[in-house]
Amino acid sequence: MVEEKQQGLTETKKGNFSEWYNQVVQKAELADYAPVRGFMIVRPNAYAIWENIKTYFDSRISKLGVKNAYFPLLIPKSFFEKEAEHAEGFEPELAWIESDGKDVEEKVAIRPTSETIMYASYAKWVRSWRDLPLRLNQWCNVLRWEVKQCKLFLRTREFLWQEGHCVYETEKEAEGEALKILEEYRLLCEEQLAIPVILGEKTESERFAGAKKTFTLESLMPDGKALQMGTTHNLGQGFAKGFGIEYLDEKGSKKTPWQNSWGFSTRLIGAVVMVHGDDKGMVVPPKLAKTKAVIVPILFDKTKAKVLKKAKELEKNLSSLNAFVDDRESYSAGWKFNEWELKGIPLRIEIGPKDLDKKQVVLVRRDNGKKEFVKESNLAKKATQAIEEMHNDLFKNAKKFLKENSAEVKTWQEFKKALSERKLILAPFCNTSACEEAIKDETTATSRCIPFNQKSQKLKCIKCGKETSIKAWFGKAY
Amino acid sequence: MVEEKQQGLTETKKGNFSEWYNQVVQKAELADYAPVRGFMIVRPNAYAIWENIKTYFDSRISKLGVKNAYFPLLIPKSFFEKEAEHAEGFEPELAWIESDGKDVEEKVAIRPTSETIMYASYAKWVRSWRDLPLRLNQWCNVLRWEVKQCKLFLRTREFLWQEGHCVYETEKEAEGEALKILEEYRLLCEEQLAIPVILGEKTESERFAGAKKTFTLESLMPDGKALQMGTTHNLGQGFAKGFGIEYLDEKGSKKTPWQNSWGFSTRLIGAVVMVHGDDKGMVVPPKLAKTKAVIVPILFDKTKAKVLKKAKELEKNLSSLNAFVDDRESYSAGWKFNEWELKGIPLRIEIGPKDLDKKQVVLVRRDNGKKEFVKESNLAKKATQAIEEMHNDLFKNAKKFLKENSAEVKTWQEFKKALSERKLILAPFCNTSACEEAIKDETTATSRCIPFNQKSQKLKCIKCGKETSIKAWFGKAY
Repeated sequence: MVEEKQQGLTETKKGNFSEWYNQVVQKAELADYAPVRGFMIVRPNAYAIWENIKTYFDSRISKLGVKNAYFPLLIPKSFFEKEAEHAEGFEPELAWIESDGKDVEEKVAIRPTSETIMYASYAKWVRSWRDLPLRLNQWCNVLRWEVKQCKLFLRTREFLWQEGHCVYETEKEAEGEALKILEEYRLLCEEQLAIPVILGEKTESERFAGAKKTFTLESLMPDGKALQMGTTHNLGQGFAKGFGIEYLDEKGSKKTPWQNSWGFSTRLIGAVVMVHGDDKGMVVPPKLAKTKAVIVPILFDKTKAKVLKKAKELEKNLSSLNAFVDDRESYSAGWKFNEWELKGIPLRIEIGPKDLDKKQVVLVRRDNGKKEFVKESNLAKKATQAIEEMHNDLFKNAKKFLKENSAEVKTWQEFKKALSERKLILAPFCNTSACEEAIKDETTATSRCIPFNQKSQKLKCIKCGKETSIKAWFGKAY
Repeated sequence: MVEEKQQGLTETKKGNFSEWYNQVVQKAELADYAPVRGFMIVRPNAYAIWENIKTYFDSRISKLGVKNAYFPLLIPKSFFEKEAEHAEGFEPELAWIESDGKDVEEKVAIRPTSETIMYASYAKWVRSWRDLPLRLNQWCNVLRWEVKQCKLFLRTREFLWQEGHCVYETEKEAEGEALKILEEYRLLCEEQLAIPVILGEKTESERFAGAKKTFTLESLMPDGKALQMGTTHNLGQGFAKGFGIEYLDEKGSKKTPWQNSWGFSTRLIGAVVMVHGDDKGMVVPPKLAKTKAVIVPILFDKTKAKVLKKAKELEKNLSSLNAFVDDRESYSAGWKFNEWELKGIPLRIEIGPKDLDKKQVVLVRRDNGKKEFVKESNLAKKATQAIEEMHNDLFKNAKKFLKENSAEVKTWQEFKKALSERKLILAPFCNTSACEEAIKDETTATSRCIPFNQKSQKLKCIKCGKETSIKAWFGKAY
């Protein structure tokens, strides 16, 4: 029987990064282009990561009192018009449904985000202070048409995400929980995805359409571009006023509540590919890997039965890692090694007839290729340790990269130099739209965020030279 | 402080059943009408049930080798035309996207089901026998416009579902697994939802558009109407041929594979409401209840602190039931009893100062209102038992209802009489579309399914009197 031809990578991460990314995503069977331009198919290898992100995050927000729900896909035209900035921001993104022969009262579009459709119901449900805080989240698909060049996970017209939408009596609570969720996002990125992030507030021009304040997490990709990993918003009272959300406080007076919303999407998977992937393919962050270990038996005719039996035994012992035996006989062990390296399973366990005699296995880490002989009796412990260590190393390396590729500058010359070196740049900034626009026009770099808790300082804006007390992060962005 | 007015039911299950259903669904905050006609909002109380169904079913199909994925929302027009019967069946259901200003190659519609969009990719991915069986499933929203009268969970334009789509080398495998999944659906309905079902094959006219055979599970609702709980299909080779799915077999010859698909939707939640709900409101099937017990402390000023402390202790001990203390002070205990009965939490645990002294609590079952004094030390065990017993009783009662309200008939007179008594009817049937049509025209009853494994028998069709060897189930249907 002829072995199937193997589809390895033909591009390196340091070579054409964009082509490398596309190859990893497709050859590791994470995603594929859909037959409709700008759309993607999330294949099982990536969907499993998304499911683990979901399970993790659901357990976290459930502790904060957030409940999951599902709101309709289609939103009436008039709803978009109730919050002026929001309407303007999303207008070019909308896909409208043909109303020929449909008994609809007005035109409807596919949700680009669900503020409007959710808050129309909130206005109906919220009556008194007893109904607050109201905290709902939904996991769903959204559609934003205005995508020029599709890039799987990063820029597609349809994507999967979670969107949280909460209502509170006070702005303090609304903003406080927006920041609390930002911290949850940080934990997700750093402790699960092993990707370090920079937290801060967006400038006015980068704010979510309709928000009073937008908070963000930014990470740095290997090509020097920043990627927004998630955002949370203090929505103020704009939507509440637009949709007529009102409540009676304890004294019986009618009040307008405060709101926040927050979301992250399947683009996180794109970040994982870019940050952790290598020239062999994908590296699944071990904490989010559904299958944390693959067991490859080394099969020879005479010892096959014994080796397979042992492999199955190991599979059982490693069930907490969801380990599985790749016992396909139509592929060689070497072929399987390549296959699972391409797909990024964190640990590989090799077992052959010689190992059997010595009551040992070979344990190989996907990220650094480190091989170790491990006693069978010690395997479960060692494998669990390796998962932990691999996570720590991935995070450490990503942190090192972020540190080495970010720069603090004081002058416009330094700014441009750092940008040409593909760095993420912290620079004094006057926080005016005029300067932001000028920087973008000249360099295509955008402001990523203004870090929190800056100490009082006397600085000069890198662009206009005017006095300012804050610094902001800038960079080219996805 | 004035207690909020309580929104109990104003209709009984034996009264206006349809109105009772609408009240339970809305007042137990399971779902609500969306602002767009024909659409629904799945609220947290129902979404939690859906999530538990998902978790349960995912773990089951994962064992069968099925993996989850996500395919695009929008489907090109030409795809619908590749399988003629499928195209015809879904044509009136489609919501098309306005193409003004959109860079689309052809018109696209929102998925009513995903056979076509998935199989276009399958054609790309399947190359050799090594790629088979290919077994994917997705949890998603679908949209079918052709809904006249919206009924929450049962008939809405958009609904949530799972759809499994598999490809095999042989028809035997394709049909065998379609039947295996049908059995999984039966387990879900009977052992999780506590709803008995009747299994069988659909007649030609009730078959899924494009399927060779459709298998179904039917249940009987309290108003005498049948509800289809899920279907699985042997798709034959029609789609494979339409989309050009081909594989090379072990000998290197090009072959056309066989396929099946299968799905159930959020309508299951509607079935649960109808079958188990009562005049106090919803009854959540205990195995699928996220919150299986609510602890209501009986609070008096003097003993409040002690009682609350104990209640919190119990909450911790019952964490496996996800129990929670309703310690809101703005509501009385009686108000809370009504609230949680309306919402259907399986168990209520009452604890007051007198119970504290006796080291006991009151355990109340939602379905039969049975109250029991239980020693604190015995509570975890008793509560877990009560969950089990409640499930068994719900199922037993539903089974009794199904038995008492189904009838086997031999003549057309008996058929019409049984139908007037709102029964599900097993009757000899010639299995021709002509007879099926005639029965439907005269009575509005439709064929529900032809049971499996009928013993060889000489019968006469109730409608045309011609000889036949099979019986079929008939009834009015949702």
